[in-house]
Amino acid sequence: MLVAVSGGADSMALATATAFEAPKLGLRVGAVTVDHGLQDGSAERAEQVAVRLRELGLDPVEAVAVRVGREGGPENAAREARYAALDSAAERHRALAVLLGHTRDDQAETVLLGLARGSGARSLAGMPAQKGRYRRPLLELDRAATRQACTAQSIPVWDDPHNTDPAYTRSRVRHEVLPVLEKHLGGGVVEALARTARLFRDDADALDQWAALAERDLRAPDGALDVGKLSELPPAVRRRVLRRAALRAGSPAGDLFARHLETVDSLVTGWRGQGPLHLPGGVEAVRRCGTLVFRRQGD
Amino acid sequence: MLVAVSGGADSMALATATAFEAPKLGLRVGAVTVDHGLQDGSAERAEQVAVRLRELGLDPVEAVAVRVGREGGPENAAREARYAALDSAAERHRALAVLLGHTRDDQAETVLLGLARGSGARSLAGMPAQKGRYRRPLLELDRAATRQACTAQSIPVWDDPHNTDPAYTRSRVRHEVLPVLEKHLGGGVVEALARTARLFRDDADALDQWAALAERDLRAPDGALDVGKLSELPPAVRRRVLRRAALRAGSPAGDLFARHLETVDSLVTGWRGQGPLHLPGGVEAVRRCGTLVFRRQGD
Repeated sequence: MLVAVSGGADSMALATATAFEAPKLGLRVGAVTVDHGLQDGSAERAEQVAVRLRELGLDPVEAVAVRVGREGGPENAAREARYAALDSAAERHRALAVLLGHTRDDQAETVLLGLARGSGARSLAGMPAQKGRYRRPLLELDRAATRQACTAQSIPVWDDPHNTDPAYTRSRVRHEVLPVLEKHLGGGVVEALARTARLFRDDADALDQWAALAERDLRAPDGALDVGKLSELPPAVRRRVLRRAALRAGSPAGDLFARHLETVDSLVTGWRGQGPLHLPGGVEAVRRCGTLVFRRQGD
Repeated sequence: MLVAVSGGADSMALATATAFEAPKLGLRVGAVTVDHGLQDGSAERAEQVAVRLRELGLDPVEAVAVRVGREGGPENAAREARYAALDSAAERHRALAVLLGHTRDDQAETVLLGLARGSGARSLAGMPAQKGRYRRPLLELDRAATRQACTAQSIPVWDDPHNTDPAYTRSRVRHEVLPVLEKHLGGGVVEALARTARLFRDDADALDQWAALAERDLRAPDGALDVGKLSELPPAVRRRVLRRAALRAGSPAGDLFARHLETVDSLVTGWRGQGPLHLPGGVEAVRRCGTLVFRRQGD
């Protein structure tokens, strides 16, 4: 198993706990720390973190330097580069799993960021406890608990200045938004947001399952969707079927928003002879002969 | 039709717009303003509002005094008393519908209040545009637009001091929480929250529909639920079936929380011979012979 370690309290607490527990299960534990190269001295710091991890008995320990691009904003680009490095380390060492130190506080922040996008259950579902090779064992634990664990064990931690840099949205959510919510909505907001994430993940999974079943029933071999059957579905399921069809035709998931699907939905529920609708990725949706067809423009 | 009017910009704008539009449709428009008796001079103010409404041509116009109890906190008690008065006026005048002046801003506040409760899609679904005799025609409009409408028509409005009283959670959400969200998450948060409400209302409706169908399939005539069939349902649907069963057995909806349903769910998914579980309202859930039974204690 590999632990992904930034050197902060969350991931250092996770590394020590895993180093303590895993051998009892006959598992070998290593760690990867990623040097994003975004701050002066980041290479030296990554080496220091690696030294501490080796002192804790983790093996192998790697400090991996990555190049952060610019696509999708600084936070997104750093995340992409980090996960690519972790994936590659996991494959190199044939790791069973990669453990991430995200806590309940990170989850609450993620939910608030999703809320600001306003794109429904999936965007409020936060981070999964398990996805592919990744595991988040601290997701039900407060950040404060990881800090206490490091203090109690005299483990030095490194506080990433990005975490308090107001240039980053997540940092503003952490230091400006959540404290205001806690103050005015009563304590327990972090817990409520984390619980919300769990409930919405389940809701989104169930509705996706329904949409997949419905699609099987109303999709012809040539991909055309039966408008009559679409109109009988509850709106939440119909929009998901329409989304699947748009993705299948080549609309990029990141560019396809609720408002696009609302417009396509009007071909079903508000039909008055509209022409083809244009969706992201050069996809068009057109109604003809009682069916909806999604196709690349020019096809 | 009756318009419910507090005398604030939202409901005064709604009253003038309705007074202008309804006669074209052959509809007669009256109004009700409720005197909650919570502030000095509230009776005089209600009469002033009624006079203004009559000047706008609404007929009949009633100022109704109510007694606000204490149950469920001051905001809840005032709401209960208000809706009881509106229901009674609607019946007295045989109104087709009662129009409420809630705007998109009110909707965003409601979603945030629901988020703090952390109890899933239904609590984030906000206020419906239509429910029973009630309609909310301004739900897609900003509060600022109603204020502009009143200014443009020189309609005097009365700003309820409760709306800025920090003793009220909703007032704190309006004046402290939403501005911070707007500032740090980027503009459009109110719109995103209102869209979230629409999407979650649809999600909750679809999942409730699935739960009702599933219940029909796995519930024996004596009310016992088939554990085998329950375990095949997606968790989001199963929890809703369990909730329906608990309500049916007499658990009060307001006291039944996500954590209760998680515990009951463990009788299905984490069975290790547990005894009966106690739910609000003296209801117990017990597993026996491959079924779940919900009953009043002592029955």
